[in-house]
Amino acid sequence: MSLKGFVIDINGVLTAGEQPISNAAETLQKMKEKYMIRLITNSTSKNKVEAAEKLNKHGFSVEPDEIFSPIEAIKNYLKKRGGGAFFLSTQKTQKDFSEIPKTPVQAVVLTHAHEDFSFENMNRAFRYLLDGAVFIASGISKYYKEKDGLLYLDPGPYVKALEYATGKEALILGKPSRDFFLSAVSDMGILPSEAAVIGDDIETDVRGGMEAGLKGILVKTGKFRRSDLEKNIHPDFILENIGEVLENKLFL
Amino acid sequence: MSLKGFVIDINGVLTAGEQPISNAAETLQKMKEKYMIRLITNSTSKNKVEAAEKLNKHGFSVEPDEIFSPIEAIKNYLKKRGGGAFFLSTQKTQKDFSEIPKTPVQAVVLTHAHEDFSFENMNRAFRYLLDGAVFIASGISKYYKEKDGLLYLDPGPYVKALEYATGKEALILGKPSRDFFLSAVSDMGILPSEAAVIGDDIETDVRGGMEAGLKGILVKTGKFRRSDLEKNIHPDFILENIGEVLENKLFL
Repeated sequence: MSLKGFVIDINGVLTAGEQPISNAAETLQKMKEKYMIRLITNSTSKNKVEAAEKLNKHGFSVEPDEIFSPIEAIKNYLKKRGGGAFFLSTQKTQKDFSEIPKTPVQAVVLTHAHEDFSFENMNRAFRYLLDGAVFIASGISKYYKEKDGLLYLDPGPYVKALEYATGKEALILGKPSRDFFLSAVSDMGILPSEAAVIGDDIETDVRGGMEAGLKGILVKTGKFRRSDLEKNIHPDFILENIGEVLENKLFL
Repeated sequence: MSLKGFVIDINGVLTAGEQPISNAAETLQKMKEKYMIRLITNSTSKNKVEAAEKLNKHGFSVEPDEIFSPIEAIKNYLKKRGGGAFFLSTQKTQKDFSEIPKTPVQAVVLTHAHEDFSFENMNRAFRYLLDGAVFIASGISKYYKEKDGLLYLDPGPYVKALEYATGKEALILGKPSRDFFLSAVSDMGILPSEAAVIGDDIETDVRGGMEAGLKGILVKTGKFRRSDLEKNIHPDFILENIGEVLENKLFL
């Protein structure tokens, strides 16, 4: 096995909630001596600078360019494709896409838009899609819990709304989409067969990465439950936590 | 055939755009001498008083209680069911539901909400549904053209969004739903087998009504196209226009 890089899920592998997982910071540091890494998340509320800062506050040593979220995947895609985009995203996230021109609109990009999922913005997105724009979204998850304890709609329902209205399928550039993992690997300049994904979610992380051709490593931290092993998904390796990567002769 | 009542689509049968269809007003008047009628529409932007007024301006003589839109169908349903409802509807439409209590929320009602499809309102609807409220919607159509020439999202996409988020299927109380036609017939106090639907849309009106057990009458006005006859739907009668009902011995 000639691994050159790791794609590592942040939440549940490196951190649990607001706390770092023990050994994760040292392990990551040692991995970085031999491998390239991309730390992945589906969240678009923080940009890569903010996400790296947050990890570094917890004792990690991460560069912004090592963070890979749908923002990066979508930016890479739009830059290759050319043309402008209409963003159904928060004002803050739109700033993270400042390199992408606004016109001519050849893509509609849907991320977590919060208050910007207004009737007017949804109608604008809908019309651009009917006019031929490609439809790109950061994910299809249904909802999430906010710090106020309440549940909020995630991008998924809005993706389904516009897919139903237009008959167009969205290109998903977030986990578990194959395209997202391929984009993360390509961002390191290596091939999928030269990379492994490390995740605590056997479906979203491990199966998603394996379907893109990466080796799949499941860790038993974060959201891992024993019943996950009965889902007929077969990770290449199952480790107690990311620290065990260093003990595995296959990698080091 | 012992018909007692007719369910008649307004747009395309009685009126075409802003104009009355010739003979429609006299025909309707004569039908009313022998039959009960309910004039149906999926639009919830006008209430029954306004819809009747609009028709009467065009020479019809219609009582508000002869208008039957999803507002009436939903109101009938909620009154039978009991409990309060949360409305994802315009402020104006919410007034048409003033008889329905606001609490305890045991139903979420989605009609054409326009600006009220805000992120906050969608989240509230979502949470009520997760808490056990039944999901009711006025229709599943995708979009419509406004007088400004632009296309706007109809309720359908928002229904799909909340269905996806909650895993709950909406009860549709508008055309072409069987439940809507049953509600219109029940509103006249008769049985489906004692009623006939007259419509220009072979799918939404005619098939919808026939699936609810009504006789189906297709008229070749409004949105009728010759190709509609190749859709493997078999109306009981096909007439040039509503005026021909009076010439048909089966009815009069």
